[in-house]
Amino acid sequence: MKADLDFLRPYFLGPASENADVLEALLLEFLRDHAYWRRNFHPEDGQRIDPGARHSPEFHEFEARTRQELFALSAELKRAVPFFHPRYVGHMSSDLLLPGLVAKLITTLYNPNNVSEEAAPVTLDMELRVGRQLARMFGFAVDDAAEPCAWGHLTSGGTVANYEALWNLRAVKFYPIALQAGARACSFDPNPVGPAAKALSEYSKWELLNLSIDQTIELRREVAGAAGKLDDRRAIHRLRNAVREARLENVGIAMFFQEHEIKPPLVMVPVSAHYSWEKGMKVLGLGTAHLCRVPVDGAMRMEIGGLRGCLDAAFRDEVPVLGVVGMLGTTEFGAIDPIHEIVQERDLRRAQGQDFGVHVDAAWGGYLTSVFRAADGSFLSRDEVREGFRYFPSDPVYEAFHAIAQTDSVTVDPHKLGYVPYAAGAFVARNREIVDFVTQQAAYVFDLGDEEAELPRAEKLHSLGQYILEGSKSGAAAAAVHVTHRVLPLDVTGLGRLLRVTIRTTERFHDAARRTSERLAGQVHLTMPFEPDTNLVCLTINPVGNDSLAAMNRFGRRLFSCMRVDPNQPLQVKEFIGSYTSLQYGGLTEQHATRILGELGVAAADFVEIPEDPARESDHIFVLRHTLMNPWFMTGPDDRTYIGLYWEYLERTITKVLNERELWADPNGDSE
Amino acid sequence: MKADLDFLRPYFLGPASENADVLEALLLEFLRDHAYWRRNFHPEDGQRIDPGARHSPEFHEFEARTRQELFALSAELKRAVPFFHPRYVGHMSSDLLLPGLVAKLITTLYNPNNVSEEAAPVTLDMELRVGRQLARMFGFAVDDAAEPCAWGHLTSGGTVANYEALWNLRAVKFYPIALQAGARACSFDPNPVGPAAKALSEYSKWELLNLSIDQTIELRREVAGAAGKLDDRRAIHRLRNAVREARLENVGIAMFFQEHEIKPPLVMVPVSAHYSWEKGMKVLGLGTAHLCRVPVDGAMRMEIGGLRGCLDAAFRDEVPVLGVVGMLGTTEFGAIDPIHEIVQERDLRRAQGQDFGVHVDAAWGGYLTSVFRAADGSFLSRDEVREGFRYFPSDPVYEAFHAIAQTDSVTVDPHKLGYVPYAAGAFVARNREIVDFVTQQAAYVFDLGDEEAELPRAEKLHSLGQYILEGSKSGAAAAAVHVTHRVLPLDVTGLGRLLRVTIRTTERFHDAARRTSERLAGQVHLTMPFEPDTNLVCLTINPVGNDSLAAMNRFGRRLFSCMRVDPNQPLQVKEFIGSYTSLQYGGLTEQHATRILGELGVAAADFVEIPEDPARESDHIFVLRHTLMNPWFMTGPDDRTYIGLYWEYLERTITKVLNERELWADPNGDSE
Repeated sequence: MKADLDFLRPYFLGPASENADVLEALLLEFLRDHAYWRRNFHPEDGQRIDPGARHSPEFHEFEARTRQELFALSAELKRAVPFFHPRYVGHMSSDLLLPGLVAKLITTLYNPNNVSEEAAPVTLDMELRVGRQLARMFGFAVDDAAEPCAWGHLTSGGTVANYEALWNLRAVKFYPIALQAGARACSFDPNPVGPAAKALSEYSKWELLNLSIDQTIELRREVAGAAGKLDDRRAIHRLRNAVREARLENVGIAMFFQEHEIKPPLVMVPVSAHYSWEKGMKVLGLGTAHLCRVPVDGAMRMEIGGLRGCLDAAFRDEVPVLGVVGMLGTTEFGAIDPIHEIVQERDLRRAQGQDFGVHVDAAWGGYLTSVFRAADGSFLSRDEVREGFRYFPSDPVYEAFHAIAQTDSVTVDPHKLGYVPYAAGAFVARNREIVDFVTQQAAYVFDLGDEEAELPRAEKLHSLGQYILEGSKSGAAAAAVHVTHRVLPLDVTGLGRLLRVTIRTTERFHDAARRTSERLAGQVHLTMPFEPDTNLVCLTINPVGNDSLAAMNRFGRRLFSCMRVDPNQPLQVKEFIGSYTSLQYGGLTEQHATRILGELGVAAADFVEIPEDPARESDHIFVLRHTLMNPWFMTGPDDRTYIGLYWEYLERTITKVLNERELWADPNGDSE
Repeated sequence: MKADLDFLRPYFLGPASENADVLEALLLEFLRDHAYWRRNFHPEDGQRIDPGARHSPEFHEFEARTRQELFALSAELKRAVPFFHPRYVGHMSSDLLLPGLVAKLITTLYNPNNVSEEAAPVTLDMELRVGRQLARMFGFAVDDAAEPCAWGHLTSGGTVANYEALWNLRAVKFYPIALQAGARACSFDPNPVGPAAKALSEYSKWELLNLSIDQTIELRREVAGAAGKLDDRRAIHRLRNAVREARLENVGIAMFFQEHEIKPPLVMVPVSAHYSWEKGMKVLGLGTAHLCRVPVDGAMRMEIGGLRGCLDAAFRDEVPVLGVVGMLGTTEFGAIDPIHEIVQERDLRRAQGQDFGVHVDAAWGGYLTSVFRAADGSFLSRDEVREGFRYFPSDPVYEAFHAIAQTDSVTVDPHKLGYVPYAAGAFVARNREIVDFVTQQAAYVFDLGDEEAELPRAEKLHSLGQYILEGSKSGAAAAAVHVTHRVLPLDVTGLGRLLRVTIRTTERFHDAARRTSERLAGQVHLTMPFEPDTNLVCLTINPVGNDSLAAMNRFGRRLFSCMRVDPNQPLQVKEFIGSYTSLQYGGLTEQHATRILGELGVAAADFVEIPEDPARESDHIFVLRHTLMNPWFMTGPDDRTYIGLYWEYLERTITKVLNERELWADPNGDSE
């Protein structure tokens, strides 16, 4: 551990700005580099701002105003959340990796816009390289000469990347129906095409709705090839337009499903999924009623039996399944869904002609894949990964990370476990040919049967804005992620080394929780409602003798109020800053709720959908949530560690709040 | 003009980094301010990184790697596009305003996440303040105590803001149908409610589809009020769920429209609209077939007669109209749509029970409103605005800006005419109550008939992530825009003063075009296909004697190739860097195309939808496009101006390309 910490010490500004001089030196050097670069573009033009102007009243006024406003900003920022400090154990933020931070700052001076190469010849290429690096980490093939070849790009965050996953999956799922309809309208019936090697017209609707992504890509290519052989330019044009007009993206969801008599498609996520999935279903017009929320097991992971049930029902009723989404680290609980089981299920169904996309929402956990990757790119054996850990990775967690390579796409947030500044999310797809289904091509570029305008795919992707949800976007974010990946490669010798430290921190935190739980057994029931899968730990705490859920939740809230950010108090007042979440009624099975409440000594019957208490304290279980991504938790003042200090603090606070019974206990409760 | 330039000189780093010391001093001061702030959070903890570690091999290795990668980045960035320089006349980028740039850089060190106040107590508030500043500039009411009160927030760019407009308009348009259906399912029929003061059940579907946004907000409130009077908690809960379940966002577009027998709604945009509108229709599942592309007139502005025709047809056929979108500065041509006529049309229709939202896509031109705003917030008279200009603003342009206050929402991009770094777009809505229709509330917060949990709206908006499309987002962007607006307020004494300079630059550029056109009359037809509305000028150029559109387009492309960014050449090779666009067949009326081609001496019959030439050079008219937002165009070396230098350069280049006939002329053309 000492070696790991020694390794990491230079990488951050540090809780006491220990490396301030490093940051300052780097920033100054490259700031000046930028300034002198400007002077090299047409130096013959001289200066536009007369050095004498410096002494003009306008300059003085500008400086006064600007300094005043920047001072005000800086003063207000003194109330910012101290993410950088190991006394912050709350949300998914920490100190930033210096190389990425400096890259972001200096690239901002150049202000590239990664929407197109004309506005960002340098950073757009970096963004595509970053996409490949992430793809490689996940185990996707990235050989330009072979198919499938993965691609990825940055988004403003995981939410947009999730929308993009839905947008891609929808576009490809319903394309074959439009292709058949468009061809039929033009009396064009290529034969043989597709996986069944028969005429396009002979495919049933249900067959077309159950092609895999790769099969749809291939089918489109075969039909385009056949169309290209027509020697009538206008016929090709008509066919292209007919297909385009028949697409869901053109006629809209309402008319498409009505005309083709297709039932609205389903998307399956665990009940623990991030709320952006619900939002995405609304935004895309698919509707939250068509989001199947698969139950989770006692470890808060998607319950594969539940998924099977949802899939059985869907395929029995001929409802298309757009995709199944697994969480690789839920935002609330850090749980890792069994990606391997989802993939197995997909393979099994595929063999029966039932298909769906598999997307991994790894906004939180995606970068943890670097812990499983050797420097040579190979996936480490279970034993190799385990070395140095007490519990990590459990078998299902190991299998889940291993299986990412077999999914269709991944969301991952560099601004989370990539330790780069906001905003930087990413979307990575296993087969880059999928972009043909979402592209916004200018009217004069054909998208069917038109070979001559074909650039190599890798070059085409440089028209980035054509293939993504967003438009203008920061090239500085791409530079930040790129430099981070270069300095700390996405394997166990680079970023993985840092992330290993966070998991070992979690194991210590976990052990401390057990010890404290035993020591405080007479005062409170302190439990982890489920074992941590990664570096996020949840705690539930109930005073001994209290069996009311509402009172327990009030107790938890009171406890949390000591460690919440309070804009009305100086930051220094806080010893530690944490975060909380809750287990919602409906968010876990009755069996697991009963187990968790039983361990806490709370009556299971208290946990209800519609609470009687007006403050609605009994439709959820309050949970203290600890994100342990700061690199310095296992160090601390006076040979203590921040983990130790936190537990001491928590114990003290529990004792304090226990004595404030009037603030949380049921007024007419019979406890004690 | 001299006074204006004197005023502006301190505000930018400058084409030769003239103000490098200002930037460096500000950055250093506030970088150190951040560093020492860290030391003030629990100084008793001491240091985590031993000063001795500086001399360890790990430190040396880190420094070597980081410096190497940052050097590589900085070296690559030498090929970045020199947006900052007045020799750049291409896309919508320029030098950055120093106050916003510094604010962005220093806030990045604090790395706030504006998704919620817990992660950004300071910058989230700034973002909402920025929203109010923009709203006030547009003329929306922002009095917290009155209704409607506007709100706004930042997005990753104009594209996302446009999606957000559609998402908001759709949510509010179809809510009344769901409200009626949900109430009916619960046998709840409040009376009187709504604008007609009758029972909810008595409203016809068509009436409900033609309520204004404000009426829908009021209707929802009345029904919630009536529900709140039910003394049965469970009944309220049932009603809430019934309404939620009936919403389009829940059942999805397909089932909603089928069940209620509603025709898919239309959105109307000018044919010149940004392609994000087409993308938005696809993403939201509405379908591009339901995007009515209204023709534009000879000035490339939405043709109001065309709009009337679209509206007549829609209302005759009982097709709901989601919204009409006017462009306030098209991205390609800078044209200002007649917002005032759209608003008049809306008012007229509203009186007849036909309603639709009005959104302004002012991604480009929104900030120009500051030119029309006095420091006291009043809208300047036409004569006051005109002072100092030769042509600006034309009457329709003046009226258009004046009418923004009467629209429902606006997209505007601070990273364009706000001169702040990427990525910063914004969405502003006239009535903030609209957020109730898109909110992602946690399950335990009721959204109907539940008064007790009501926070004041202004406080609620601090849960920003609940009301917007995106999730995690940069607080640094908010700080950049906020400081910019503080230093240069959104009126004619602040940012408006800078933007006035860009419009005067445009007028000079325009006059130079006329003069050059006359001087070169014997060699080329050089025309402006339409007069510039703002600070973007388009040019079309055809060699005298050539009547082939394909040849003219090749000529234009060849001309442009001299001023395009070429990653394979050093930047210094370029005298000027420009951009281009094209007038697509179908993008303008036959009449205007004929006029434009006539002025160029090109046969109108050449302009076709499906070209015969394989390079497809005759389905568009190639256009050189000049964005004139750099503040220094009217200065230059040796008492010249960059405007003058550009025209000299263009003339020289035209002459050169004229001599390269083999590269553009029709091989068998009969020209000359």
